[in-house]
Amino acid sequence: KMLRRVLCTVLFMGALPSLAEASQGHISVVLLGATGDLAKKYLWQGLFQLYIDQVSSGHSFTFHGAALTALEPGQRLMFDVLKKLACPPDEPPNRCAVLKDQFLKLSQYHQLKSAENYTVLNRQIETLLHQEGLKEAGRIFYFSVPPFAYTDIARHINSSCRPPPGAWLRVVLEKPFGHDLQSAQQLAAELKSFFREEEMYRVDHYLGKQAIAHILPFRDQNRQFLDLIWNRHHVERVEIVLKETVDAKGRTSFYEQYGVIRDVLQNHLTEALMFLAMELPANVSRAEEVLQCKLQTFRSLRRLEKSSVVLGQYRAYASQVQEELQKAQSYISTTPTFAGVLIHSDSLRWEGVPFLLTSGKALDERVGYVRVLFKNRAYCTQSETLRDAGHSQCKAKQIIFYIGHGALNTPAVLVSRNLFRPVMPQGSWREAVGQSDLHIFGQPLSDYYVYSPVKERDAYSVLISNIYHGRKDFFITTENLLASWGFWTPLLESISQQSLRLYPGGVENQHLLDFEMVSGEVAFTGAEPVQLLNPSRLTPSDYKIIQSKFRQSPLVSAWAEELVSQLASDIEKTASKAVASSGQFHLALSGGSSPVVLFQRLARRHYAFPWKQTHIWLVDERCVPLTDTESNFFSLHNHLLQSVRVPYFNVHPMPVHLNQRLCVEEDGGTELYAKEIMALVANASFDLVLLGVGSDGHTASLFPHSENGLEGTQAVVLTESPVKPHQRMSLSLALINKARHVFVLVLGKGKHEITTLISRVGHEPRKWPISGVRPSSGQLVWYVDYEALLG
Amino acid sequence: KMLRRVLCTVLFMGALPSLAEASQGHISVVLLGATGDLAKKYLWQGLFQLYIDQVSSGHSFTFHGAALTALEPGQRLMFDVLKKLACPPDEPPNRCAVLKDQFLKLSQYHQLKSAENYTVLNRQIETLLHQEGLKEAGRIFYFSVPPFAYTDIARHINSSCRPPPGAWLRVVLEKPFGHDLQSAQQLAAELKSFFREEEMYRVDHYLGKQAIAHILPFRDQNRQFLDLIWNRHHVERVEIVLKETVDAKGRTSFYEQYGVIRDVLQNHLTEALMFLAMELPANVSRAEEVLQCKLQTFRSLRRLEKSSVVLGQYRAYASQVQEELQKAQSYISTTPTFAGVLIHSDSLRWEGVPFLLTSGKALDERVGYVRVLFKNRAYCTQSETLRDAGHSQCKAKQIIFYIGHGALNTPAVLVSRNLFRPVMPQGSWREAVGQSDLHIFGQPLSDYYVYSPVKERDAYSVLISNIYHGRKDFFITTENLLASWGFWTPLLESISQQSLRLYPGGVENQHLLDFEMVSGEVAFTGAEPVQLLNPSRLTPSDYKIIQSKFRQSPLVSAWAEELVSQLASDIEKTASKAVASSGQFHLALSGGSSPVVLFQRLARRHYAFPWKQTHIWLVDERCVPLTDTESNFFSLHNHLLQSVRVPYFNVHPMPVHLNQRLCVEEDGGTELYAKEIMALVANASFDLVLLGVGSDGHTASLFPHSENGLEGTQAVVLTESPVKPHQRMSLSLALINKARHVFVLVLGKGKHEITTLISRVGHEPRKWPISGVRPSSGQLVWYVDYEALLG
Repeated sequence: KMLRRVLCTVLFMGALPSLAEASQGHISVVLLGATGDLAKKYLWQGLFQLYIDQVSSGHSFTFHGAALTALEPGQRLMFDVLKKLACPPDEPPNRCAVLKDQFLKLSQYHQLKSAENYTVLNRQIETLLHQEGLKEAGRIFYFSVPPFAYTDIARHINSSCRPPPGAWLRVVLEKPFGHDLQSAQQLAAELKSFFREEEMYRVDHYLGKQAIAHILPFRDQNRQFLDLIWNRHHVERVEIVLKETVDAKGRTSFYEQYGVIRDVLQNHLTEALMFLAMELPANVSRAEEVLQCKLQTFRSLRRLEKSSVVLGQYRAYASQVQEELQKAQSYISTTPTFAGVLIHSDSLRWEGVPFLLTSGKALDERVGYVRVLFKNRAYCTQSETLRDAGHSQCKAKQIIFYIGHGALNTPAVLVSRNLFRPVMPQGSWREAVGQSDLHIFGQPLSDYYVYSPVKERDAYSVLISNIYHGRKDFFITTENLLASWGFWTPLLESISQQSLRLYPGGVENQHLLDFEMVSGEVAFTGAEPVQLLNPSRLTPSDYKIIQSKFRQSPLVSAWAEELVSQLASDIEKTASKAVASSGQFHLALSGGSSPVVLFQRLARRHYAFPWKQTHIWLVDERCVPLTDTESNFFSLHNHLLQSVRVPYFNVHPMPVHLNQRLCVEEDGGTELYAKEIMALVANASFDLVLLGVGSDGHTASLFPHSENGLEGTQAVVLTESPVKPHQRMSLSLALINKARHVFVLVLGKGKHEITTLISRVGHEPRKWPISGVRPSSGQLVWYVDYEALLG
Repeated sequence: KMLRRVLCTVLFMGALPSLAEASQGHISVVLLGATGDLAKKYLWQGLFQLYIDQVSSGHSFTFHGAALTALEPGQRLMFDVLKKLACPPDEPPNRCAVLKDQFLKLSQYHQLKSAENYTVLNRQIETLLHQEGLKEAGRIFYFSVPPFAYTDIARHINSSCRPPPGAWLRVVLEKPFGHDLQSAQQLAAELKSFFREEEMYRVDHYLGKQAIAHILPFRDQNRQFLDLIWNRHHVERVEIVLKETVDAKGRTSFYEQYGVIRDVLQNHLTEALMFLAMELPANVSRAEEVLQCKLQTFRSLRRLEKSSVVLGQYRAYASQVQEELQKAQSYISTTPTFAGVLIHSDSLRWEGVPFLLTSGKALDERVGYVRVLFKNRAYCTQSETLRDAGHSQCKAKQIIFYIGHGALNTPAVLVSRNLFRPVMPQGSWREAVGQSDLHIFGQPLSDYYVYSPVKERDAYSVLISNIYHGRKDFFITTENLLASWGFWTPLLESISQQSLRLYPGGVENQHLLDFEMVSGEVAFTGAEPVQLLNPSRLTPSDYKIIQSKFRQSPLVSAWAEELVSQLASDIEKTASKAVASSGQFHLALSGGSSPVVLFQRLARRHYAFPWKQTHIWLVDERCVPLTDTESNFFSLHNHLLQSVRVPYFNVHPMPVHLNQRLCVEEDGGTELYAKEIMALVANASFDLVLLGVGSDGHTASLFPHSENGLEGTQAVVLTESPVKPHQRMSLSLALINKARHVFVLVLGKGKHEITTLISRVGHEPRKWPISGVRPSSGQLVWYVDYEALLG
């Protein structure tokens, strides 16, 4: 009855749609959590805007608010909200008043608690449509409820509220979508049992922010300018920033479980990063193409380490948590309220470009932006003081997607005038007239082309419109979500014990939260004594690296991470010395899992390593093709060679695969390798051999009681391993002992027993091959971590 | 007699030295060209300063001015100069007056024209010393004469004016020291026949500039701060600049032969570059160590190309030359009066860091500086407007050696306060009190630690003092000189036909001389129409890419640069399609010079190229080791593989070097390569084969009338080239014609004749192997540039 009344009203208004125009069918919108904060603040307004925009679209609408509250109080609460809905400034007041009246009449409250409630809702919708003789176009269920409620609601909708065939179902989900990879996977799996992927619209309201939503279109429409410069050769750095002045007061029950990384970085800032960094698909409005490019970009990101992040907590947070969550005075929260993260991509386009993601509460100002700073490649011959004002090539070049607030206080796209005049869609963005006295990122506003939206729109109204239009590219797919959690989860796990810098909040923070990049890591800049919140009392740095003796040779011991970093430095030092004296560095590396961390460290941190002069040899190899994942060389290639610039000629894999067969004696692989060594390495004396130790005392691929390699002078030998793959090729003890330096790396609890054993035995290579490592004139150093040494 | 009189005067002055103090012996200084410009302006003043400083050193002095002018007018001219000598401001006027009087009395004019004149001079010195009973310490001959006079003077000095055994000879030479490598070598060889290396003091007066002379000591004394940051990871760029406001008027007879590169860059700016870029020797005051480090740095510099430089000429220069050199109106000078040069070092320390050397006449201001700009690695969380003034890590970080003039108008060393407080020698440099309103390189002076010399000294007086002290590290050795000419000469030769940008001169130049770095090259920034002085009239942009047919196959034609860029794009497209359909891309590349530009373009511009999925094969190879510079693979490695990420396993050089010998048939290299192809490439059908054409019609290494490869089914063959190295390995026509795509690249006038020929002939592979390229089912495309196509 209500709908009929409205439709009649509509007929009396010239500007309003006729019944015939409702031919596209009817859409029922169900807002779950209709009286919650988000609904009050944004969602009802967004739905009203949708109604205003689409009332003439040919669709008819009903709006169903729902909550756990009983019918009457719920109804009252909801209509209190609806009455306060604002008219958009660009809407004629008369028309708006009529539309608002209609909107209220089309809206209805439901208590949705039990399964039966859902069945009743479904019946009501069906009845209404039947009465009005309307075809059903689709149903939107907007979940504005806490995540723990998702599964139940989803089950009810799936079992009781699906629209009839031919009409669509769209369920809209709000974050958090889990708090790590595992919980996100679990939630995703549950939802998947109720809804098809295309039915789910996961909201990241940042994708509705006009500046963020325009990154991809901007890149697409300005390909002619960006094709050349959107890469590591031209981009100096990228900053993706969301600063807030508010703190977490009143929200600590939520915040304490999440923290700034889960709250802002994992979702909002990561999505902005994706739009910026992804390869541009041929068609940017095809959701599937965009998704594939995003996923590829996630795969290209380097794994985050503890050292990729700086964390802080505003000082009042602790007491807010104690108060709101009724915690004891002794309770220490380790939840970060500020984070700065350095992200690197290994893609050809972005290799080496720092992406800085920063967000925090209780900061100096409220502002959000994505800033691409280009390298200055110009030299300006005329002195600045003697030039006309103008857009000199020596001024900074940047492109900024300004999300809002801050000095500009409007969404905007800014492009330095010395870059190019961007192509912008005329209908939706217009050139802004500059406030000449404003400075943005160190430059007067007049140095930029500034564009702002013709119509400033709230993110939720943008998103609700996109739900209506089925634009899935504005939402987070399951794959996208899991890729993002996959990227962030290892970091979240590794920082649970990380120390936080305490900051006072507001403008008093001053320099406290400045941070700096140092060889691929970040650290707070200030060396001044600051208050730290250090959750784990026993951290590796309590122990220093110990230097001592082991089997009469120098021993270096520390926690694994520090030990590997020390070893990497020592290898670099050895390399630099060798290159300084002979112009070359011959390095023989072992396979196995321990060296992998070392390889990664060498690849990522040691920029001054003389790779160009380094020859890479293998200590041992499994008799499998080099491209087999079991191959030592394959692992070395993956973790080291792929990332550094060793000339092709200097890489010497073992010839285990000759004449299309593996380690056949007649093929003479061992002789071939020995010959290559003789030809290139002076006196066949490697500058450095890196070894490991097996729990049976083997080293290289020289196993206890091996017939080859433990005695005699043969340089390279074939051996047999007790474990698969059995066949191996290995340098012999004779050759190893000719090296100038031999470093032995032993990591982990699993090696404690053998470490203890070999600390006691003498020279018994047949029983424990490692005991036969005694360089004749070179230096032997043991690198043993605390776990292997102390158990 | 004169000397005795002076020595007596000296005895009456308390502050002045007694005769006994002359026990170190006597020094005779002979200034050749005593009445020339340089002598008038700087040298006599420098000698007077030397006398003031060293009068109490224990040495006695006489000063001998010499020129071609006859005795009497010469004497008059010279004493007119001497009378005008100024007293240094820090010298008590009384003492100075007495010393000046003495200096005049110790000075004497000589006409030095004939051999006899020199003999006479020598005899006079000997007589004087004998009369006064003085031991001879040494003789300084200062050549302030044009270089053509050097040889004669040197011969006379060597034969008639050498001091007796036990006393030293120092000859001081002024630039120019040649105008290219060859002339410099010739001059050096001539001088070497008269003087020993240690006797020669080649002046580069820049080495006497206090700021330049302090670069090495500064680096030495601040090792603790610089060790970490004086490298490519921290330095963004280095600018070495000497700008002049004066033009060449009145000096065009000299300037027209030299130009700005020979006049300023080859010597002054290069020396500054060396001090900055060289590895720091353990002891910076040992001339030999410094020299060796310099020479090593020269070797690390990348060869300069035409595209490493931008050149200009101020507009009035042409008429000045016409007037002063009596040239016809039609005479066009191609001498640059402005140059900006981009220099790269391949050293590990500096790889990738741009060194910009700039100098010019008729510019906006007179100033000289060496500026090291560091990378900004900080992120400042607080907005600039909300921070305390202070030395934020986000402000620019720089170290500047300010040579003089310009806004500061004094030599100075400036270090950004957010870097470190430098260690400076207290006696000679003092912290300057800032003029707070002054901005230097975009920052207020208060952002820097500023040091200036306690005593500002003219470069010549510094150098003369160093000649006296025998400090050879302030002078240019022969090796150093030839290394510098060796570096600059190829550029000087290649730019003789380069176009020059005309500039009005003075502040009107505005943006005209700004330039920019683009992929390792420099170009003027302004795209605005400017007047060019273009010795070669033909410019590429007159034609567009044409698409047509050639030998029944598609033809793409354009100017070389555009053509190569089109080819690179087409290769990338082919690669992406192949990877999309089969997961791999098998690319066979030819050797030779034409593909080098293509390789560089692929490496530098094609970020999205699927290198990880690409297999690289060779079309042909010379029978030399892979590490030989003649090897096709070596060139491919240098220009492409080194810069992209092709997995090691996907790189397939031809096995021309087996069993330590080259292309021996029994070693079965061709069969081995064929097998590898069969094993990895489906149907042995490459996705893309890139070919070239020789002027004899050969393609790959298939030469006319070759016994192998033109017919038959063998896949890989050994062939003979008419030019060295004769032995080759090559894919056969049979294999090439199986490819899915064959692209043939033909570049340059030298290929016009063969291009015309093969456009007409049919299928005659024995005569013209290229005519045998007819893919059986694949696509053939010709990429021929206008020069090859149209001649």
